[in-house]
Amino acid sequence: MDVLSSAPARRIRHRPLAHAPLAHAPLAHAPLAHAPLAHAPLAHAPLRRAPLRPATSRDTSARAPERLPGAPLRIAMLAPPWISVPAAGYGGVESVVHTLTDALVRRGHEVTLFCAPGSVSEADVVTLLDRSHPDEIERSLYEVDHVSQAFDRIDAAVEGSRFDVIHDHCGFVGLAMANRIDTPLVHTLHGPFTADTAAFYARHRDKATLVGISRAQLMSAPPELGVIDSIPNPIDLRAWPLQERKGDYLLWIGRMTPEKGPHRAIAAARAVDVPLVLAGVIQPGQQAFFDREVAPHIDGDRVRFVGEVTGSAKHSLFAGARGLLMPIRWDEPFGMVMVEALACGTPVIAFPEGAAREIVIDGKTGFLVDDERAMVDAVGLLQRIDARDCRAWVSEHCDVESVAAAYEQTYLSVAVQGVERALAGV
Amino acid sequence: MDVLSSAPARRIRHRPLAHAPLAHAPLAHAPLAHAPLAHAPLAHAPLRRAPLRPATSRDTSARAPERLPGAPLRIAMLAPPWISVPAAGYGGVESVVHTLTDALVRRGHEVTLFCAPGSVSEADVVTLLDRSHPDEIERSLYEVDHVSQAFDRIDAAVEGSRFDVIHDHCGFVGLAMANRIDTPLVHTLHGPFTADTAAFYARHRDKATLVGISRAQLMSAPPELGVIDSIPNPIDLRAWPLQERKGDYLLWIGRMTPEKGPHRAIAAARAVDVPLVLAGVIQPGQQAFFDREVAPHIDGDRVRFVGEVTGSAKHSLFAGARGLLMPIRWDEPFGMVMVEALACGTPVIAFPEGAAREIVIDGKTGFLVDDERAMVDAVGLLQRIDARDCRAWVSEHCDVESVAAAYEQTYLSVAVQGVERALAGV
Repeated sequence: MDVLSSAPARRIRHRPLAHAPLAHAPLAHAPLAHAPLAHAPLAHAPLRRAPLRPATSRDTSARAPERLPGAPLRIAMLAPPWISVPAAGYGGVESVVHTLTDALVRRGHEVTLFCAPGSVSEADVVTLLDRSHPDEIERSLYEVDHVSQAFDRIDAAVEGSRFDVIHDHCGFVGLAMANRIDTPLVHTLHGPFTADTAAFYARHRDKATLVGISRAQLMSAPPELGVIDSIPNPIDLRAWPLQERKGDYLLWIGRMTPEKGPHRAIAAARAVDVPLVLAGVIQPGQQAFFDREVAPHIDGDRVRFVGEVTGSAKHSLFAGARGLLMPIRWDEPFGMVMVEALACGTPVIAFPEGAAREIVIDGKTGFLVDDERAMVDAVGLLQRIDARDCRAWVSEHCDVESVAAAYEQTYLSVAVQGVERALAGV
Repeated sequence: MDVLSSAPARRIRHRPLAHAPLAHAPLAHAPLAHAPLAHAPLAHAPLRRAPLRPATSRDTSARAPERLPGAPLRIAMLAPPWISVPAAGYGGVESVVHTLTDALVRRGHEVTLFCAPGSVSEADVVTLLDRSHPDEIERSLYEVDHVSQAFDRIDAAVEGSRFDVIHDHCGFVGLAMANRIDTPLVHTLHGPFTADTAAFYARHRDKATLVGISRAQLMSAPPELGVIDSIPNPIDLRAWPLQERKGDYLLWIGRMTPEKGPHRAIAAARAVDVPLVLAGVIQPGQQAFFDREVAPHIDGDRVRFVGEVTGSAKHSLFAGARGLLMPIRWDEPFGMVMVEALACGTPVIAFPEGAAREIVIDGKTGFLVDDERAMVDAVGLLQRIDARDCRAWVSEHCDVESVAAAYEQTYLSVAVQGVERALAGV
């Protein structure tokens, strides 16, 4: 069921540009004027919805140069204002931004990271608000303050230091206003489509280039969105050790919600009589569910709860587990914990929801199971999975160098379109 | 203590224009090119913080024409997306927008009202979202979707139907992005200044023309905001009957929060042994306070709770009361219920917080008292207040015709600045 690698990448953007005519900014960036030729090999055969494709260095280098030597891009990376980069604990988007940004800097690009105070990055860090707002996510006061200030800074960049592209990870303001700034904008779709976000994206998608994070996510996109590439969330494999000899416990990690299924993980682990470690933070509003469905089962032995884990403790916890249980019941657009487990050689047993169908290759990187009973059976089969196969899959699909290379192609494509439009005097 | 009428209006905007160069839109609107001369008499002597001035027709007509005959303005009225206009019950901003918009239409202007679905107005109504969002106020998804679509429609208005001005009542998106649209924007400050909103306004105030709603509100503005006019919230006096013979009850109306003081109103009314009617909606999060501090005192006789009142029932309730109790403990930027009570000839007994200090003229339209004990004493003095004086004060300061005339001057001023800048080729 390896849908991820079932089709090669087509990184084509027939972007219906709603941007105001680009004035002169891209022209000042001469190296970009060479890009169209280098990019040409990819310029054909758009897929309706390009599946999450293997974007390894090996793979892309066979078709196009990974990036243009001598042509570093000036990238405005727009992180959310809610949580500092990288998030110490929970903070999926912030982790993605951190990993990608540092890789882009290593690859020679000039990256300015607009982000919450307290952030740490190899890029030039610019914070625009007085404090972070972890408990006020999506409050328009902060989101628009952050994004509009970033836009103003991007506009103020003078000749010779103009940005080639904005990579926007921040809610909704950036995309909805992307037709009001000359610098082209790439917006990564980090969340699932709901009725309201689908309507929003259908209305504003022409203002920028959208990128999804999984095929499952894009399958639920409204048809008006047309062709959208997906680029998986990145992982820096250097931080996640491969461990072939496993401990004697199963792992569940996530938010304490019914959709994430800690109670189902407990039921499965008890049935197969393997110890279970539960990790994760109890967020506001989740205490009642935790108290009712999880806490009564915690005995410090067969079912343990270790709270939020970070850093090397988190790596060890993932690396030592016999398997990661993902009894989820929602259309999860990615599922970074699965990638982190696989990176350590830890197989994943997941319900076939959302991107789990793409990340769990049944019999290869774990098992896709329909319910708790089948999950119990699959635990008995975990020894058939080769830890090295798990890591190899991550290396091929989600390694940050591959992901950075894929985004570079996207950046070049939108920057080149800007140049072409400017040359055409549109 | 009539601070409201202590200084005449100076409707001067030395607006530090951060707008992108205006292209040709204002020039297409020829009548505006006559405005500077007509506007000249007001063009002097800016006050540091202009107090809420009496802006009656009588008053302004003595100094400048109320509006330019034959020069209707094209106004984009930007209401919030949360609640339909006018709000059936609670919805202060929506009521203000409704009253002002209809008056502007009556005065001959071409007004397009961008607002939540279900709105009713004499203006051209344009709804941009699929539904209203009364329980998701300030969620960026909806606010930016609404505002960016409105901006796009405003930009798309073709030659001959271009807007002269945007009047923005909607949160934060419009102001923060006002430098990214050619049409000048007037933003009414509807809320109190907090540390975070003060920082926001200090950062973005140069992008548009700000208007406050009371001197008390502007006193707490950060100094970076400079000179800001205040124009009171409007009331359509035709809807509020003057009633000189009062019933035998006191009235409290508001949200069920400690700051609004229903428990203090109860204590005062009980002490003076006059029946009290409590009106208002119990919003999410207020039930516990209501159950603890209010409900135990409700006896259906000396203390009655009538819930949310609307329409003619609301008018009657205000008109029949001996007095309105406002034992508030917060820096309320306006306080529409005080104006509504006074319009009916009902005096107000208020703690000296926020705009209560401007609306309650001690001994004339009610009494300013420091605590519940003084409130008790003041109830005994209510018969000294002449109902006609209460209404006259409202008529002089808050009547919608006066308020509309004041906003017209603001609109003309910013539109004229746009024309002048366009003529100067800036």
